[in-house]
Amino acid sequence: MKNVYLFEEGSKEMKDLLGNKGAQLCEMTKIGVPVPPGFVISTNACKEYFKRGEIWNGLKDEILSALEKLEEKTGKKFGSKENPLLVSVRSGAPVSMPGMMDTILNLGIDDEIVASLAKINERFAYDTYRRFLQMFGSIVMGIDEKKFDEILEKKKAEEGVKRDNELSTEALKEIVEEYRKLYDVPAPQQQLFMAVEAVFKSWNNERAIHYRRLKNLPDDLGTGVVIQAMVFGNLGDDSLTGVAFTRNPANGQKKLFGEFLINAQGEDIVSGKRTPMPIDELKKIYPEIYEELQKVAEKLERHYRDMQDIEFTVEKGKLYILQTRTGKRTGKAAVKIAVDMVKEGIISKEEALLRIDANSLQQLLHKQIKEDKSLKVIAKGLPASPGAAVGKVCFSPKKAAEIGDEEKIILVREETTPDDIHGVVKSQGVLTARGGITSHAAVVSRGLGIPCIVGCSEIKINEKEGFMEIEELTIKEGEEITIDGTTGRVIYGKAELIEAEFTDELKELLNWADEYRKLKVYANADFAKDAEKAVYFGAEGIGLCRTEHMFLGERLPIVRKIFLEKEKRKEALKELLDLQKKDFFDLFKVMNGKPVIIRLLDAPLHEFLPSYDELLEKKIKGEMNEMERRIFEELGELREVNPMLGFRGVRLAILHPEIYRMQTRAIIEAALMVEEKGYKAMPMIEIPIVSDVNELVVIKKEIEDEIRKVFEEKGKKIEYKIGAMFELPRACLTADEIAMHIDFISFGTNDLTQTTFGYSRDDAEKQFLDYYIEHKILPKNPFQSIDEKGVGELIKIAVEKARKVNKNIEIGICGEQAGEANTVKFCYKAGLDSVSCSPYRIVIARVASAQAVLESE
Amino acid sequence: MKNVYLFEEGSKEMKDLLGNKGAQLCEMTKIGVPVPPGFVISTNACKEYFKRGEIWNGLKDEILSALEKLEEKTGKKFGSKENPLLVSVRSGAPVSMPGMMDTILNLGIDDEIVASLAKINERFAYDTYRRFLQMFGSIVMGIDEKKFDEILEKKKAEEGVKRDNELSTEALKEIVEEYRKLYDVPAPQQQLFMAVEAVFKSWNNERAIHYRRLKNLPDDLGTGVVIQAMVFGNLGDDSLTGVAFTRNPANGQKKLFGEFLINAQGEDIVSGKRTPMPIDELKKIYPEIYEELQKVAEKLERHYRDMQDIEFTVEKGKLYILQTRTGKRTGKAAVKIAVDMVKEGIISKEEALLRIDANSLQQLLHKQIKEDKSLKVIAKGLPASPGAAVGKVCFSPKKAAEIGDEEKIILVREETTPDDIHGVVKSQGVLTARGGITSHAAVVSRGLGIPCIVGCSEIKINEKEGFMEIEELTIKEGEEITIDGTTGRVIYGKAELIEAEFTDELKELLNWADEYRKLKVYANADFAKDAEKAVYFGAEGIGLCRTEHMFLGERLPIVRKIFLEKEKRKEALKELLDLQKKDFFDLFKVMNGKPVIIRLLDAPLHEFLPSYDELLEKKIKGEMNEMERRIFEELGELREVNPMLGFRGVRLAILHPEIYRMQTRAIIEAALMVEEKGYKAMPMIEIPIVSDVNELVVIKKEIEDEIRKVFEEKGKKIEYKIGAMFELPRACLTADEIAMHIDFISFGTNDLTQTTFGYSRDDAEKQFLDYYIEHKILPKNPFQSIDEKGVGELIKIAVEKARKVNKNIEIGICGEQAGEANTVKFCYKAGLDSVSCSPYRIVIARVASAQAVLESE
Repeated sequence: MKNVYLFEEGSKEMKDLLGNKGAQLCEMTKIGVPVPPGFVISTNACKEYFKRGEIWNGLKDEILSALEKLEEKTGKKFGSKENPLLVSVRSGAPVSMPGMMDTILNLGIDDEIVASLAKINERFAYDTYRRFLQMFGSIVMGIDEKKFDEILEKKKAEEGVKRDNELSTEALKEIVEEYRKLYDVPAPQQQLFMAVEAVFKSWNNERAIHYRRLKNLPDDLGTGVVIQAMVFGNLGDDSLTGVAFTRNPANGQKKLFGEFLINAQGEDIVSGKRTPMPIDELKKIYPEIYEELQKVAEKLERHYRDMQDIEFTVEKGKLYILQTRTGKRTGKAAVKIAVDMVKEGIISKEEALLRIDANSLQQLLHKQIKEDKSLKVIAKGLPASPGAAVGKVCFSPKKAAEIGDEEKIILVREETTPDDIHGVVKSQGVLTARGGITSHAAVVSRGLGIPCIVGCSEIKINEKEGFMEIEELTIKEGEEITIDGTTGRVIYGKAELIEAEFTDELKELLNWADEYRKLKVYANADFAKDAEKAVYFGAEGIGLCRTEHMFLGERLPIVRKIFLEKEKRKEALKELLDLQKKDFFDLFKVMNGKPVIIRLLDAPLHEFLPSYDELLEKKIKGEMNEMERRIFEELGELREVNPMLGFRGVRLAILHPEIYRMQTRAIIEAALMVEEKGYKAMPMIEIPIVSDVNELVVIKKEIEDEIRKVFEEKGKKIEYKIGAMFELPRACLTADEIAMHIDFISFGTNDLTQTTFGYSRDDAEKQFLDYYIEHKILPKNPFQSIDEKGVGELIKIAVEKARKVNKNIEIGICGEQAGEANTVKFCYKAGLDSVSCSPYRIVIARVASAQAVLESE
Repeated sequence: MKNVYLFEEGSKEMKDLLGNKGAQLCEMTKIGVPVPPGFVISTNACKEYFKRGEIWNGLKDEILSALEKLEEKTGKKFGSKENPLLVSVRSGAPVSMPGMMDTILNLGIDDEIVASLAKINERFAYDTYRRFLQMFGSIVMGIDEKKFDEILEKKKAEEGVKRDNELSTEALKEIVEEYRKLYDVPAPQQQLFMAVEAVFKSWNNERAIHYRRLKNLPDDLGTGVVIQAMVFGNLGDDSLTGVAFTRNPANGQKKLFGEFLINAQGEDIVSGKRTPMPIDELKKIYPEIYEELQKVAEKLERHYRDMQDIEFTVEKGKLYILQTRTGKRTGKAAVKIAVDMVKEGIISKEEALLRIDANSLQQLLHKQIKEDKSLKVIAKGLPASPGAAVGKVCFSPKKAAEIGDEEKIILVREETTPDDIHGVVKSQGVLTARGGITSHAAVVSRGLGIPCIVGCSEIKINEKEGFMEIEELTIKEGEEITIDGTTGRVIYGKAELIEAEFTDELKELLNWADEYRKLKVYANADFAKDAEKAVYFGAEGIGLCRTEHMFLGERLPIVRKIFLEKEKRKEALKELLDLQKKDFFDLFKVMNGKPVIIRLLDAPLHEFLPSYDELLEKKIKGEMNEMERRIFEELGELREVNPMLGFRGVRLAILHPEIYRMQTRAIIEAALMVEEKGYKAMPMIEIPIVSDVNELVVIKKEIEDEIRKVFEEKGKKIEYKIGAMFELPRACLTADEIAMHIDFISFGTNDLTQTTFGYSRDDAEKQFLDYYIEHKILPKNPFQSIDEKGVGELIKIAVEKARKVNKNIEIGICGEQAGEANTVKFCYKAGLDSVSCSPYRIVIARVASAQAVLESE
């Protein structure tokens, strides 16, 4: 059995046998990339070692024989004093386990060889020997690394220097002397065998085992061992070392991007001890090396068909590639690189689409904070609406409404209520101390596209005296802060922001996605301006227009009349009718014939009334006026133990059908008006919180009766559809009864997740859900990405039952999860027709739904 | 085609053809019961009539020919002046539609015949004619009935009498004269055909159609027409009319039970115009008639194999049976009659079991109010714990606790909190103004077997001044009221109560049920005294011991220490450990080896703290002390938007495992102690609110670790089981993952119903659920009887998935519904092993589960 492979003998397909690193080096060698020569000891040999418990003679022979070939190629000799070959010995498992196992550099040196090398370059020689002595001593000989560090640190202190490379040659020699007292250096060949054994053993060190547990990797793969001729970037000014991306990882531009250091070793770049030069400088200093590097880069990119992250070294004018791997990149760069590579004929459109992390696309459409070590993060809350914003702290929605047009304001509140919406609208961003990701502030901000952080319990607001405290820090009203709604960070002062950009490459990628995807992509949009944004990002319809937001703000007094002043109810409903008609008219006009799903009022009544606690306080203090007294009494009646499971949606409508009738009339009259003006309208009326077919039947009769009346009054008709929102397990379980009465179903996966898990979203995250995710009790947050096992199972049951009785029923999803890539893919597999998400997430949904098709082929 | 059948020609099997009433009269004739002779026109004839639109000659001929036979049998002649035969013409459809269609009595009379009859008995003749004229006139001739009534009322006013039977013969003659002015009376034969046609038509009158819609009956059955010789109980003192049950419908005693009126017609008994005599009097007055009636009663009972409700008339000393039907009876009578009839060889045990309305059995075990028209019902609330109680109103739990041993107290509260339990325990009953059927007061009362009414919003309590108001009425503390927890009625003053009785017949019936049933019947019992009661009623184990009740009352201060005084937590846990150990010891001792499922703490923390509102009030008023301030702050943190979906059960335990560890230790130590004392113990530890397998795995590890420790410390082991409560849809949907880690599953259908429907039980009933049930949007309250379509579907999914991976897993149900007959039957069909209900409902479960087996055979 062959255990040792020269780089020339392997290829990237042999990963299991040679380990990842070894196979990649073989591959590069095979395609003619200038890799320092070397060979690989196979993973089989590693497994055999664990059986035998020692390096056997056959293996030693193979190693020595490969070593001879290495000597031929380099013209150097391992263990020779005159022209010594030094090698590196590295681990390399079939799956990457970065930093988990051991590496020894500069192997093949000893007292005599170093003396000989010193004749050519004394500093280099002792520096190399010192490095070897420490690595070999700590890893192979098992000497506590601290002992080496102590000697080194002591010497640096004596010389009054901070960095290793500032040490004098004399000092390096003294260090070597000290190190040598710690152990006897074996002969080079002995070093080699001992190092190989150490690498084998490191497969089973604690760190590696723990890592495999964590990543769920098998324990029986074993590691390969890569033995490679050392090349040195620190042999003088004609030597250097560097890293380069084949394209710019920040913006995707096709141009070498990276940095290098003259007369240095790779670790000097990584350690940040010296400031490297940008790669453009290399072009000026060594144009021929730059050109060669560029050619190699192109070759690697074409071969690996992706942008590469390359480590290279130049030893005395000769370029060596030490490593190449797929380069990490920003979302923006990923899009540009993928699209460019299609144009360059390197990859296909399908590959380009599959390569994109769809979830990362949203960030391209929001302002972002320019990351900087000086950012002063003072608190963290729940990221409730993405994007970054800078503004002056303001505690009063009223004031925000007044000055928000002139100044940039961040509205900071304990929590927001419907009363506050006029202030929210005029703010750059919203920060609240309480509330979850479905709290009022969060929902409204997402709807408006304003960055928002909620549940930031570290801030203590003193609105009356106009300041807030975060631990020791006091921030007064008017001081500037920055909030990052994508991560939940609150930053002191004004951070620099990066503007969002809907690039041509992204547009092109999205067009390709549209060629493949089968799911329709709709938007959740409540107002015409959201709808415009949604259409701009490619929405094919409105999948959810939540009408509750249309009942807030300056309309609140009218809404309250309906509940509190029964004698004015009729008049108030008429007033709302006209306002709602305008809302829907604007929406239909923007969508011009595209489907618009309008959910009839879903919220419980008390959401439109002031807070009970506040009124209770007034009552106790005897400060309550007559109107407040009425509201307080009404609230007493309306107060619910579990509002999530309360008196809302269709339940409320069955007992009080007048609001649904008003909304239906507004929808149908608006649709007729829009058509009169030469546009098209496709109204789809959605009934929320259905748990039983009879609820639907009863309320559908009311809706259709109102529609019939409007048609009669206006003498005109229009096409419309009626559907149900499925937010409760029972709707899913009885879909076969419900589906025959409706044209469409939309899964409201926020509420469906709450009821399926029995988690209250307002509370769960802070109480236990974050802990669950951190401790892997749940693999992910089911409110962010769909829970396939539970919620998904209900969706599948519902789709199957519904289609059995109504083949043509349209089925979609409109919960928060619908804009998340895995959820979109699940929806495709589950046989849905559409997904509907917030406008900015449409780009995610378009790409992810194309990926779903491509992945299932 | 034959359209007309003599009573001798039919039988009860011919219901579809002859209608129900006709077929029953045929049947009685066939078995020799003295029925007035007659014949039936078939439903086919009715259908044919609707095709033809008129009575055809062939049918007329058949009717006349049957009429001749009637004349032969009675020796009278239809239309004859000398010896006239009068008949009744009644409708009778294949399904009973009581009162929906028309009936005409005394048909075959006219001016000449009445004059002739008057010679024998003038008063009888004109009274009969007057009745006929009104019925025929209004029903057949279509004259407004008011016109007849006006004439009658006017005459009564003139004579100064209140009742029809007080009118003088002269007055009756004058009424007839007036009536006769309203229309011309057709000849007898013509009367007959017209009446038949009127009955046919009445099949399609509005009332009848509406009734069929309501009862979901088909429209094409048609009605039969029964024509029968009239017999008169009002021909003198040798004539009488009466009703009789073959056994006592109140207590089941085997003895004729009923009443009669001499010289009267049947309607006189029904109308209550004269006070009838008890049937025992008949034995004294006409012993031979009584004897004949008794023989007929026996014959009917044996023939119909059930207790009968008989209408009879004696005409000049001859007994006629007019109608027989299965008699309605109380729950108590039903049990006695069924058991007696088995012993008498009339029915089999299986029939006896199937005949019992299982749900009605519970009432036998609770005190009941003796129904009486004088009961003054002053309010109605939700029936939360069955049974009736009388006592003095008391608004303070503290006072109730003090005086409850000497005086009978009804505790009346806005709502109860854990603080109040010491008062609840000493009360005869509990009445609250707020709360639903799962509120604290309700749950505690059911557990204690104390009658309870909750959510009685009509009462306004002024605790300070010691009175409550119900509309105009003011009731002071100390005044007596009666509450009926079975119906929710609040009654002013002291009503008479009927004591409960666990009769020998019921015990016998339950023993028979045990022979057939396959489901095990467990009890929900939290304390040893409940367990004793449960065993007395036949429980085979404890299916749910809720440990939260063990944390209340005088233990509350200890529990609060755990949450509020972290430094005393350990000590408090130790204190609770000892108390819990005692709880479990007592329970195991009573159950002596029968399984005892103990649910670990399920309630959210804030349930153990005082109300937030109360503290808020104190805070605003500045009346808060230091301890209250701490509680208030803690409550602020713990307050939940949706406590039902909150931080409780296994969720809380994962973050704070010490309570579950303490409870586990208490269970296992108690079990070991019980065995030491020579009893047996079978502890089953139940984990609540599981939504994901990992929650279970994590907490099971803690529990088993604690058990291991106890075993080690004590040097002894004991068998135990660990299971999960399935109260969330996701547990059901992922049962295949969860089931492999546990020994048993118990469906908590209260919470499962809440999450499946998205209904908050605390709020739903008052807000919309009552409306839904009243308006048939839902067929029944899913919190009382299982919702098979939704919740049941989840249970079926869970059972199937669980058994697939764990064949021997024990599966039960322990929600409120488990003590309801339909739910029990569903559970049997769904393949469950056991049902667990409150002690008093065990009798229901035992019988219903036997019925389930018998019905499925």
